[in-house]
Amino acid sequence: MEIKVYRDLMGENEKWANKTRQLLTENSCVMFNLIGGPGCGKTTLLEKMVGQLEEKLRFAVLEGDIETTRDAERLADLKIPVSQLLTGGACHLEAKMVYYALADFDLKKLDAVIVENVGNLVCPAEFDVGEKVKIAVLSVTEGEEKPLKYPLLFREAAALVLTKTDLLPYLNFNKEACLDNVRRINTNLPIFPVSATQETGIKEFVEWLINKIQAK
Amino acid sequence: MEIKVYRDLMGENEKWANKTRQLLTENSCVMFNLIGGPGCGKTTLLEKMVGQLEEKLRFAVLEGDIETTRDAERLADLKIPVSQLLTGGACHLEAKMVYYALADFDLKKLDAVIVENVGNLVCPAEFDVGEKVKIAVLSVTEGEEKPLKYPLLFREAAALVLTKTDLLPYLNFNKEACLDNVRRINTNLPIFPVSATQETGIKEFVEWLINKIQAK
Repeated sequence: MEIKVYRDLMGENEKWANKTRQLLTENSCVMFNLIGGPGCGKTTLLEKMVGQLEEKLRFAVLEGDIETTRDAERLADLKIPVSQLLTGGACHLEAKMVYYALADFDLKKLDAVIVENVGNLVCPAEFDVGEKVKIAVLSVTEGEEKPLKYPLLFREAAALVLTKTDLLPYLNFNKEACLDNVRRINTNLPIFPVSATQETGIKEFVEWLINKIQAK
Repeated sequence: MEIKVYRDLMGENEKWANKTRQLLTENSCVMFNLIGGPGCGKTTLLEKMVGQLEEKLRFAVLEGDIETTRDAERLADLKIPVSQLLTGGACHLEAKMVYYALADFDLKKLDAVIVENVGNLVCPAEFDVGEKVKIAVLSVTEGEEKPLKYPLLFREAAALVLTKTDLLPYLNFNKEACLDNVRRINTNLPIFPVSATQETGIKEFVEWLINKIQAK
């Protein structure tokens, strides 16, 4: 009985993920699913990408959080279309939530939607929300062994953004070991080291994102 | 039917949590459940506490991770009894896992067991594993709004350890706002700012822990 319920729940998510993908395809819109631990710098990364993204394409952001609308407010301040999905306790976004939230946007007028998932390195990686690709975000303050300890996200991701590199001088973080650990999980994963505060590396990641959208 | 299954599953965890609590009581042993996001510094905190704890009491550590035995190896290097619980994908520890892992220890010869949960600010807070109290760990690199965005852990915790304070000069982290946010969720929560690299604040937290054990 337990297994049956589990399967139904998963089937339910897949059904909504497929509906979402179809909706996006019909509107020639590409969706990204940004996943990383709490405080790894996902929102700040998005804030710093806005300027460069706006020059090249029309996009919106879906913010996923358990509580508060703080992240959505930060992005709304930058005058981009943004909605906040509150899970009310759940540790990840599911496809049905995302499908309904997309109705807030005029998809015909968008090239891309970026979903910022709930801050969690584990559960969000298990749920397809209809995205084209998942993007992993890891901050250098979290330690170089994280790809080995939380392999699913790094295996599922199409790119890794390594944030907060400006803090490297103050940390015992072995960048080479981190990159080796990533390669053990996902050999050819593109890795983008960035510092949002120093605004380095953002351009390269934005270019990768735009190429992914144009390859739709 | 789904509600029934959910209740059974929760009942199952409660049953094992109660068995664990009984086992610990019979052995006059106190268990703590250390919870925080990935890379917030839980293992490093434990490493730095070992010396001061050893002077005062006999203790063991249960390491919870999805994969790898790295954290357990780090603590085993310090010659303390340690076991590694691998969840094989699950994002939190459940009471049954902890109950069986405790069999590795000679509880009669221990005053305390410290459980380091899977790195996750969300799900572990939902699962009682038979601990006396939960302890929240948050690093200053994660941002001051986290208590509002992930309120359950901060509501459930009996203490908060605020780690990596040595990085404060290099961050846009408003410590007063963070403490205010904690107070909004849990008015009287004791807060211990620590820097493991500079070994500041560890003593105060260890003293609090020892008082909790002696008040068993």
